[in-house]
Amino acid sequence: MPSKQTTHNGLASTRQAPGRSGLCAPEPHPPGPAASLAYAGRITALRAALAAREADGAVITSAPNVRYFSGFTGSNGALLVSAGQVTLFTDPRYTLQAGRETAAKVVIAKGPLESAIAAQLASFHKVAFENTRISFRSMAALQKARVDWCALDDTCEALRMVKSDAEQEAIRASVLLNSAALDEALTHFRAGMTETDLAAEIEYRMRRRGAEKPAFETIVAFGERSALPHAHPGPARISGRGLLLIDMGAFLGGYASDMTRMAHLGKVPTATRQLYDAVSEAQLAALDRVKAGVTTASVDAAARKVLTARGYGKAFVHSTGHGLGLEIHEMPRIGKQDKTRLEAGMVITIEPGAYLEGFGGVRIEDTVLVTASGCEILTPTSKKLLVL
Amino acid sequence: MPSKQTTHNGLASTRQAPGRSGLCAPEPHPPGPAASLAYAGRITALRAALAAREADGAVITSAPNVRYFSGFTGSNGALLVSAGQVTLFTDPRYTLQAGRETAAKVVIAKGPLESAIAAQLASFHKVAFENTRISFRSMAALQKARVDWCALDDTCEALRMVKSDAEQEAIRASVLLNSAALDEALTHFRAGMTETDLAAEIEYRMRRRGAEKPAFETIVAFGERSALPHAHPGPARISGRGLLLIDMGAFLGGYASDMTRMAHLGKVPTATRQLYDAVSEAQLAALDRVKAGVTTASVDAAARKVLTARGYGKAFVHSTGHGLGLEIHEMPRIGKQDKTRLEAGMVITIEPGAYLEGFGGVRIEDTVLVTASGCEILTPTSKKLLVL
Repeated sequence: MPSKQTTHNGLASTRQAPGRSGLCAPEPHPPGPAASLAYAGRITALRAALAAREADGAVITSAPNVRYFSGFTGSNGALLVSAGQVTLFTDPRYTLQAGRETAAKVVIAKGPLESAIAAQLASFHKVAFENTRISFRSMAALQKARVDWCALDDTCEALRMVKSDAEQEAIRASVLLNSAALDEALTHFRAGMTETDLAAEIEYRMRRRGAEKPAFETIVAFGERSALPHAHPGPARISGRGLLLIDMGAFLGGYASDMTRMAHLGKVPTATRQLYDAVSEAQLAALDRVKAGVTTASVDAAARKVLTARGYGKAFVHSTGHGLGLEIHEMPRIGKQDKTRLEAGMVITIEPGAYLEGFGGVRIEDTVLVTASGCEILTPTSKKLLVL
Repeated sequence: MPSKQTTHNGLASTRQAPGRSGLCAPEPHPPGPAASLAYAGRITALRAALAAREADGAVITSAPNVRYFSGFTGSNGALLVSAGQVTLFTDPRYTLQAGRETAAKVVIAKGPLESAIAAQLASFHKVAFENTRISFRSMAALQKARVDWCALDDTCEALRMVKSDAEQEAIRASVLLNSAALDEALTHFRAGMTETDLAAEIEYRMRRRGAEKPAFETIVAFGERSALPHAHPGPARISGRGLLLIDMGAFLGGYASDMTRMAHLGKVPTATRQLYDAVSEAQLAALDRVKAGVTTASVDAAARKVLTARGYGKAFVHSTGHGLGLEIHEMPRIGKQDKTRLEAGMVITIEPGAYLEGFGGVRIEDTVLVTASGCEILTPTSKKLLVL
């Protein structure tokens, strides 16, 4: 697949896999009136945040934020947002696509986007930038423009936390697709197939149902390997007796879903049942705590309290959940030290887990919509331990 | 899928999709003697580069470079390389995996990795960092350690350009799998299926053959949409008459493959045949130029000269190719302004293309190994325009 013409590395390189792993996108199409309105509203919110910093411009360089504020889904793009204008900078590979996807003014840069942007900053005084996302080198290039720079920190991500009705609908559709894909894939499960085979089956069912791609590398981990919270599916055969952990998500219409379910091959030993029941109880306790106005730390604490009481406190090695949307991990994080207050319209995961080396692990995860009175569990899949 | 416990955003955020899209990995396993030797050799080369800068340490923060120098495949890791030691910093989700994957000393950090690293820099004088990859904010956190900092620029990526025998074997296997997956997927092609369906079929065949994941979002673009160099597969049906562009790659054993092939539905119009033949001739001209000692710019020029002579110069909107390995886009870039001299053992793509808005586009791409006397085309798939 082609790279751009310049030798420049792009606005931000990554610790993640490279190049093409950009946001998946629906069919590029001309922005409709509703979409244009949504982008206009988002830009208005961003401008308010800029005004609070006395900034007269912002340079947005991360793909999900470029998409959120403009609709552009290409892998190389940046926005310059001023009081009166929104300009998208991209390279010649995206000339056609940019014209179709965004209502912003489009500048096709032949060299590094930073240079093209810096050249347009002469009349600006104070410009905000994405310090959490832009690479040190790209920022050095932008800094050639003699303006005051101010850090956006998590400003854009905070604006994205509460989902609009259209975004909620997109996530609902993604969640339903994800659950349907699991149901369908499980009908093709046979003892003796490998973890990789089952992951392939799951991702195929997602794709055939219209998903752009998996929201992350599907995790299928059997037996002792279920104790690795981020196990990659491997050639291990799923046979004999043991826990089977499946953590899967899809991107549909650009929006993510995320779900973890557990199955067990063969008769469930008492120790496994105890582990499962503890995690299940912890998940329900956290769900029960979710409600607009509550801090994320207290949701995490609800799950952690149950697991600690059951003797699995140290086996719960990650946070209880995270927001999701255009990215699979968004704000807010639902962890020990997170003080964000939940708001109606946030969409988060609730996914406590406990992992015992040499034995196995259990995680149970739903995607939920925060409401004024509690939450709506979007994931329809049963949480009973499935015995295969 | 779980995120780490801290609220910190990680060492480098990205313009790409988020979170879990880390490098795909083979089954984590204890590093064998051969693998350990390979990592030791890579660290030796890095130390030589540090010595040339009079640096007594390096902080490596990007996932592919962390993997290249240590074997660790988790999504959150960083290395501190000193004259006498290599230390991997990660979070508690990866305790088991880190122990299995790397021979480096492992430090499990409970907070941001930058803080854990900065705390160990007291005895250092000059430390190199990945300015092209690390985020501005993460670097600000590292800079709390009072040492001289020096930029690595593309040092690590340059070390990765020439592939070892084992790496070449891994890429060969990935390329063969990729071609086999296309052959198999095409036997399931039916006129009337959507672009998304065919992409799903392709990715399923890759996965069932053992690929960890696609190396990028598979491109299937039919008709006029083939003129978008980075088209996302969509719900458009592949039927009637027109060009069909398929750009696909797999990760196998952590290493990428990359291939583009064209098909045509129905009788091939003269204008399409002319376009195809021009791109085909350009691709052969570029391949013919590949040889150790030659500059990448001259390879690009060879393709560009043909397309310009045929009247498609302005329709060739990207570079002729790129290196690949642990990432799908690696150094060297094969573009107009790239002065890298090819060396035996580099693995690159050769993929000129021409895109005509409202008509369609053609791209033909092989993965090739640079040799002393020319190149070995690793991709076995026929380059004849397939008529479906």
